[in-house]
Amino acid sequence: MELDRHGLETLDREQCLRLLAGRSVGRVAITINALPAIFPVNYALLDGDIVFRSSPGSKLTAAAQRAVVAFEVDDVDNPTDSAWSVLVVGPASEITEEPEIARARSLPLPPWAPDSKCHYIRVRSELVSGRRTDRSPMSS
Amino acid sequence: MELDRHGLETLDREQCLRLLAGRSVGRVAITINALPAIFPVNYALLDGDIVFRSSPGSKLTAAAQRAVVAFEVDDVDNPTDSAWSVLVVGPASEITEEPEIARARSLPLPPWAPDSKCHYIRVRSELVSGRRTDRSPMSS
Repeated sequence: MELDRHGLETLDREQCLRLLAGRSVGRVAITINALPAIFPVNYALLDGDIVFRSSPGSKLTAAAQRAVVAFEVDDVDNPTDSAWSVLVVGPASEITEEPEIARARSLPLPPWAPDSKCHYIRVRSELVSGRRTDRSPMSS
Repeated sequence: MELDRHGLETLDREQCLRLLAGRSVGRVAITINALPAIFPVNYALLDGDIVFRSSPGSKLTAAAQRAVVAFEVDDVDNPTDSAWSVLVVGPASEITEEPEIARARSLPLPPWAPDSKCHYIRVRSELVSGRRTDRSPMSS
């Protein structure tokens, strides 16, 4: 088990992808009008990349076009289990061509907002990193 | 109740601060070596600003020095309640002087990592925004 300088276990890419596959809600960080912003999104994996829906014309859709974005998933709210977080950093792009659109439509991605969201944003998982810690000694 | 263009209820500053006061884990987005990153942190409120711990010499501490950062808190994993998210954007700085240090030390801020974290980062809540949606129609 590899520990970082803060005593947290560092997770390799395969461990991170397994943890990502087991969750469905993450947070994406983008820049809007030169200011940082974070949005929660439902996501799914497509060939190891992150895919989430976005509304047509939304700030998220615009900002995620060809930008390098950060995407994070964690399990830190459960007081009994170990806590972990996984960070994916890579270029984002809208999925615009078949057969990827059909594959994205088949993913389990319920929309946040009542209106229909028919744009699919893909974040390439170029940099994947993760950390895990046993909660018990942290809360002592 | 005010709705945004996506049908989500928009929350005013007071509503957002009340929601922030009821949670203890958020995510902060910063830039490290020109790449975006997101970290989960335990936080507390101090005069309406966000305060979290950070390790001495960490990337987080360095990046959060005098940078404008995004901080997000949400409740989106509960399938029965309404889902909401609050975004705080403002300049970050380390708390270095009394009496703020003593006030920060008195906040309920358990550390993530096993090592001691004695730096306190404050994010001024200059821009506070929030959205809420009833989960029921979203999952239908």
